[in-house]
Amino acid sequence: MDAGQAHVDAVLGRFFSLAKKRAESFGPTYVELWQTLENNTVGGKRFRPRMVISAYKALGGTDLEAAACVGAAFELLHTALIVHDDVIDNDFTRRGAPNISGTYRDAAIARGATATQAAHSGLSAAVIAGDLALFNAYRLIDKAGVADDIRLQLIEVMDEALFASAAGELIDVDFSTALDMPRVDDILHMERLKTAVYTFECPLQAGAILAGAPSEVIATLGDFGREIGIAYQVVDDVLGVFGSETDTGKTTIGDLREGKRTVMISYATSTDEWDAIEPLIGKHDLTEEEADRVRAVLMKSGARNFANGLARYYANRALARLAEPHIPPALRAELHPVADAVLGRVR
Amino acid sequence: MDAGQAHVDAVLGRFFSLAKKRAESFGPTYVELWQTLENNTVGGKRFRPRMVISAYKALGGTDLEAAACVGAAFELLHTALIVHDDVIDNDFTRRGAPNISGTYRDAAIARGATATQAAHSGLSAAVIAGDLALFNAYRLIDKAGVADDIRLQLIEVMDEALFASAAGELIDVDFSTALDMPRVDDILHMERLKTAVYTFECPLQAGAILAGAPSEVIATLGDFGREIGIAYQVVDDVLGVFGSETDTGKTTIGDLREGKRTVMISYATSTDEWDAIEPLIGKHDLTEEEADRVRAVLMKSGARNFANGLARYYANRALARLAEPHIPPALRAELHPVADAVLGRVR
Repeated sequence: MDAGQAHVDAVLGRFFSLAKKRAESFGPTYVELWQTLENNTVGGKRFRPRMVISAYKALGGTDLEAAACVGAAFELLHTALIVHDDVIDNDFTRRGAPNISGTYRDAAIARGATATQAAHSGLSAAVIAGDLALFNAYRLIDKAGVADDIRLQLIEVMDEALFASAAGELIDVDFSTALDMPRVDDILHMERLKTAVYTFECPLQAGAILAGAPSEVIATLGDFGREIGIAYQVVDDVLGVFGSETDTGKTTIGDLREGKRTVMISYATSTDEWDAIEPLIGKHDLTEEEADRVRAVLMKSGARNFANGLARYYANRALARLAEPHIPPALRAELHPVADAVLGRVR
Repeated sequence: MDAGQAHVDAVLGRFFSLAKKRAESFGPTYVELWQTLENNTVGGKRFRPRMVISAYKALGGTDLEAAACVGAAFELLHTALIVHDDVIDNDFTRRGAPNISGTYRDAAIARGATATQAAHSGLSAAVIAGDLALFNAYRLIDKAGVADDIRLQLIEVMDEALFASAAGELIDVDFSTALDMPRVDDILHMERLKTAVYTFECPLQAGAILAGAPSEVIATLGDFGREIGIAYQVVDDVLGVFGSETDTGKTTIGDLREGKRTVMISYATSTDEWDAIEPLIGKHDLTEEEADRVRAVLMKSGARNFANGLARYYANRALARLAEPHIPPALRAELHPVADAVLGRVR
């Protein structure tokens, strides 16, 4: 773990420890909710804080405490968004372990509640916990103790992150009820809004703002973040079907069973092979053997190659932005590996 | 409509108009979501902004724009909380009209979605819209353009409002799955946290902070808000069963059908008459005739009188706080009618 991440963990540790202390006077169930929220925040890859701190340090920033606070703010925003995303998707697990809904559902069942009551109790706790995380994401920006003009710019970026993510989530919900398969560019648009903006664009920009970087650097970081963020999502979807469970931490059958709209699937609909697998996409009890049949068609039809090619294209576009003359060499050196890592995931 | 309320409406109008403009580049469905959120924010009694502005003006504040921004912030917080409360309660209407979930559910049904899909689409939109309202409640504090030390105190009070409300919501969810009827004091505690803190205590304190009032005035306003807030909730629950639909805007059978845990019902469980109505409390298809039977028992057992007496007790305690010597006469004159109005609702 690098120093930046240790700082972020310390900020989050202090935040949750204060919140739990404060919750005590409201009774033990409230302390438990905060503990469950903390459990759902720790253990992640701290991806967004890393983007904040990478940009900040590479642009000459030296106040690691401030950068860690801003990074922690984005991490809490991430927690809030996935917790509410799981509510929307009616998911009770994340990466194989019970999420907040799952934890509360299991506890309710252990107390003798019916399945319906228990599920309701789980989703309710997750709605509440997500609200607490969201509100405090904002508050953590204040803890960075920066000058007011910087603070306002950071808040603006965080607002942009939520504004885009909410739009993306809404489009995603629409996709799930629409009869037609969305087009490739609609899927890219949705994924950019739902995830890439708050994962790459905004954290990188926040780091640059905190470092007092010139506006053209901030703008280019946004462009880099957009391109690499889209590439990341496209690869992630490919790995969601073809990846290794050990590497990605998720099954390679879940997305197919769910009928997740991805670039690969959308591309496949335009090919002759589509009819053979259409009934299998979104089949809740898809077998491993059927999944293999889908994978074979996705390969044969060129869908997988197309998606990988698209990811490479966006990653290369991201790299091109780093080559712009106003990007300091240190920043280029810091972010080149980020793009390389995405390219490295393309098999 | 008084000047304060017009200012609040103007702040909210500008906020939503900017948000809708900004949403345009994300597509028409996102503009619609913001419009639906706006529709669910306007038309309320602007109760929380009135508390902010009353305290502010009575304590000598003259910057009505700033007070309106802070008032609008509390109004948006209120919207966020009721929108997510409706998600938790699986409610598709509020005061007889479709809420956000209801609006989206109806639209999905009109597009040919199944009932399950449509309900899911409605609840999803409400989760997203509530997040947007919550985040921007915080942001509106910034728009007040006040000095940083005041801003931080205001944020602290708003944080307290959400922190308490989340705790109250969690206890309420626990009540709904618990087998035993909660005790009267547990219900008062829950209602205080879930509603009174963010409706009375915090808005009054925010107005005082904004006016630069001394700390003992701020503390007493918190006490006044707590007492009157509890009184308000207890009366509200009585009116939920015995009130006039025209006055309260809600049916007098809904709370009984839902089996809502109130002071009146909790008191009734301790009386000999309870056995006669126990099977009717929470009966989803309770008839008007059965509801009348419940009402008769609540009167005969003294449950209604007890609740009304409790409300009077808390309202009188609230009035006693106003009599404290450090409360300026103008503030006393402003808040006395608030307590009187609550007492006036006790029949």
